Amino acid sequence: MDLVIFGGTIVTMGSEGVIRDGAVVVEGDTIVDVGKSDEIKRKYSRYEKIDAGGKVVMPGLINTHQHAAMSLLRGYADDYPLKEWLERWVWPLERHMTGYDIYVGALLTAVESVMGGTTTVNTMYHYMVDYNEAMALAEVGLRGVVGHVCFSWRKEHDKRALEDLARRWHRKAGGRIRVSVDPHAPYTVDPEYMRELRALTRELNERYGSVDAPIIWHIHLAETVDEAQKIKDSFGITIPDGVVDYVDSLGVLAGDVVAAHCVHLTPRDTEILSLRNVKVAHNPISNMKLASGISPIPGLLRAGVTVALGTDSPCSNNSADMFEVMKFAALLHKGVNGNPTLLPAEVTLRMATVNGARALLWDNEIGSIEVGKKADIIIVNFRSPHLWPIYNEISHLVYAAKASDVETVIINGQIIMENREIKTVNVEEVMEKAKKAQEKLIERAVQNRRPFMEENAI
Amino acid sequence: MDLVIFGGTIVTMGSEGVIRDGAVVVEGDTIVDVGKSDEIKRKYSRYEKIDAGGKVVMPGLINTHQHAAMSLLRGYADDYPLKEWLERWVWPLERHMTGYDIYVGALLTAVESVMGGTTTVNTMYHYMVDYNEAMALAEVGLRGVVGHVCFSWRKEHDKRALEDLARRWHRKAGGRIRVSVDPHAPYTVDPEYMRELRALTRELNERYGSVDAPIIWHIHLAETVDEAQKIKDSFGITIPDGVVDYVDSLGVLAGDVVAAHCVHLTPRDTEILSLRNVKVAHNPISNMKLASGISPIPGLLRAGVTVALGTDSPCSNNSADMFEVMKFAALLHKGVNGNPTLLPAEVTLRMATVNGARALLWDNEIGSIEVGKKADIIIVNFRSPHLWPIYNEISHLVYAAKASDVETVIINGQIIMENREIKTVNVEEVMEKAKKAQEKLIERAVQNRRPFMEENAI
Repeated sequence: MDLVIFGGTIVTMGSEGVIRDGAVVVEGDTIVDVGKSDEIKRKYSRYEKIDAGGKVVMPGLINTHQHAAMSLLRGYADDYPLKEWLERWVWPLERHMTGYDIYVGALLTAVESVMGGTTTVNTMYHYMVDYNEAMALAEVGLRGVVGHVCFSWRKEHDKRALEDLARRWHRKAGGRIRVSVDPHAPYTVDPEYMRELRALTRELNERYGSVDAPIIWHIHLAETVDEAQKIKDSFGITIPDGVVDYVDSLGVLAGDVVAAHCVHLTPRDTEILSLRNVKVAHNPISNMKLASGISPIPGLLRAGVTVALGTDSPCSNNSADMFEVMKFAALLHKGVNGNPTLLPAEVTLRMATVNGARALLWDNEIGSIEVGKKADIIIVNFRSPHLWPIYNEISHLVYAAKASDVETVIINGQIIMENREIKTVNVEEVMEKAKKAQEKLIERAVQNRRPFMEENAI
Repeated sequence: MDLVIFGGTIVTMGSEGVIRDGAVVVEGDTIVDVGKSDEIKRKYSRYEKIDAGGKVVMPGLINTHQHAAMSLLRGYADDYPLKEWLERWVWPLERHMTGYDIYVGALLTAVESVMGGTTTVNTMYHYMVDYNEAMALAEVGLRGVVGHVCFSWRKEHDKRALEDLARRWHRKAGGRIRVSVDPHAPYTVDPEYMRELRALTRELNERYGSVDAPIIWHIHLAETVDEAQKIKDSFGITIPDGVVDYVDSLGVLAGDVVAAHCVHLTPRDTEILSLRNVKVAHNPISNMKLASGISPIPGLLRAGVTVALGTDSPCSNNSADMFEVMKFAALLHKGVNGNPTLLPAEVTLRMATVNGARALLWDNEIGSIEVGKKADIIIVNFRSPHLWPIYNEISHLVYAAKASDVETVIINGQIIMENREIKTVNVEEVMEKAKKAQEKLIERAVQNRRPFMEENAI
């Protein structure tokens, strides 16, 4: 579709900064022109038009840490100590999730994400062949990196799953879906397996990846204070410095790693993240809700680390709302460091856009509104009492705008939501499917039938 | 109006807990019955009906610390060091605000508040006769306590303003508006003036108040770490223990005081807050944004202090969104204390409802859905992907619901918003007025005309 969005304030997040009364031109899936409305409208007079007067036009938000399927467990258990929460509540239910549940949960999260202005999601979960998260993202029209989470206890299963995932889904759905290799964490993936996964990633990239569109890594790293102890308990390894340093000693850290959390870091850990160009997915809401600790983001930024933002799962957040994550991130570090100048609005907005794209090694195509990039664009209605009056659009986007202010969402040149109506799937049907899946899931768990996940080999 | 709201899940926040497929009956401004839908519908068959199927019906949220007029400065300056923010940005503009600006800013905040499910606001600002915040709240249909902020440098002005405010506005607008005496802070109100204001409050209560509807106090207390130093700088007084202890030594603390912030407290301060039954208005978003510090809320709750929630001004938040404040409060204390069981959802929801009512000494009329209370009721739409599926409504209200999910708002028995449409004022007109007021305000400030506030005697 050839399209001109005009009359709005374009917050490009690129070299052109903020353009008032600006316009963006989309041909097919690509942004082909950006400029002042008058000029653009004359030049592309026959293109379809969207009037963005009184609105802000900006790149879609990029959520770099999600477990999309887990929306089926949203609000199922909160406010428990972490160990009890996982062992007594989340895991016993999760073990009974089928491939279909994963698909339906991811559908629900994908719809919620689009409705909140997120256009790209990096999601880690169990990949299954018949139904999976990739299908859900593709169906809704979302862009995303879909991983398969790997554990030492199921190496052969994981390898088959990763092979299948890469073959079927990498660079598929018009290039919207990419895949990742997701070692769960340093305490659930042993050193040998970690290295094997690195070798496997190389192989998969040779077969299915490309320099422009590589298969990346997505791992939980240094989330809780006792991670070194967990590694010792699991593998008998005593860590000399930090957890990042330990993982680096395995030779697996590089610029293609998205490391979620990075809460408990030694000074050497921070150095290594910077040196290896590891990308950090910061999840302030999840870290606060689970009381994991507070990631030293200002220090990571000073060290030159690329910090992006994530919601984490609908179970530990409990929203897929990147506007909310921006506000939490911007405020949390001011608050705990006693310094109101930390993470100013513009830095925070970069974390949710351009840094997200860099984290996923996708900044050649997304993260900003610039000529040649894919058209992942959201239109935010600013004509609302809570965004009024307007002094500074970027301040409003971080401190005052809400997910519900997003009116229209374009992904890869396709209008996925228009005036808050999702065009690709029937939202009521998705919700009905999710409700039925939830009911059956609880039934299976209560009856304690044989867990689905453990027997589901590929 | 006689009205039955039926078919929803009633989160009463009162002795009846949560009622599924419940109904509430309103006659005039009062709740006269609460129960199961079937029974209620039969009993009140001829009343007007609102179908709340798939929705949550709950008491309106109570914002216990606001400066409603300041929406005109929303997003005008952020991310600066506190001193620079106040002295270089906020105050120079604020000094030029006219009574009309205050009225228009408060109109905008009142509309935003209602649209986010807030039904009562406790607001502190400069009272002026012709135009003021009380007028704005009354016009929109909001319930509120409107104060006049007092400073040592304008005692005679303050006293005249308080007299006028109490006479014209206390228990007015169908009982929706009450007033308060607002000593700005212990470093701007000298000891003698603090005692004079206590005596004046007594007098005003004799003339205009009643046991059921007293004129209360609203003060900033222990907001920043250097408050003791500021008191020393202002009045030459050296404080032996904490700031609360100092204010208590003046004999002015009692159960009718709403103390905003209470961030920097000594153990003795906490004891005194509990002993004197001072009500704490906790403003997590403002405290984080201004980097004021983190109020020891879990300790205050353990000490038996009534803790309510507030947004603080649209300048330091930058939203009037109590749903957001609930999520920040619930998560902040988990995060900084490393304990995910602190401020569970139900405790947090109580802080935003029943505790808010107690803080304003208004719990005889508001804060819960119970027979005999005033009908301040909000209807929240739960049929939305981000509130799906449903395990626990209270979890969703605190961790997943958004201001924009509020569909209908009833205050004092009157429908103020229906299906997100404000019935009392024209929102577009309010926004236009605010825009014009903002433009003129900046013009006056830039031209450095004589400040309005300093010459505006009553």
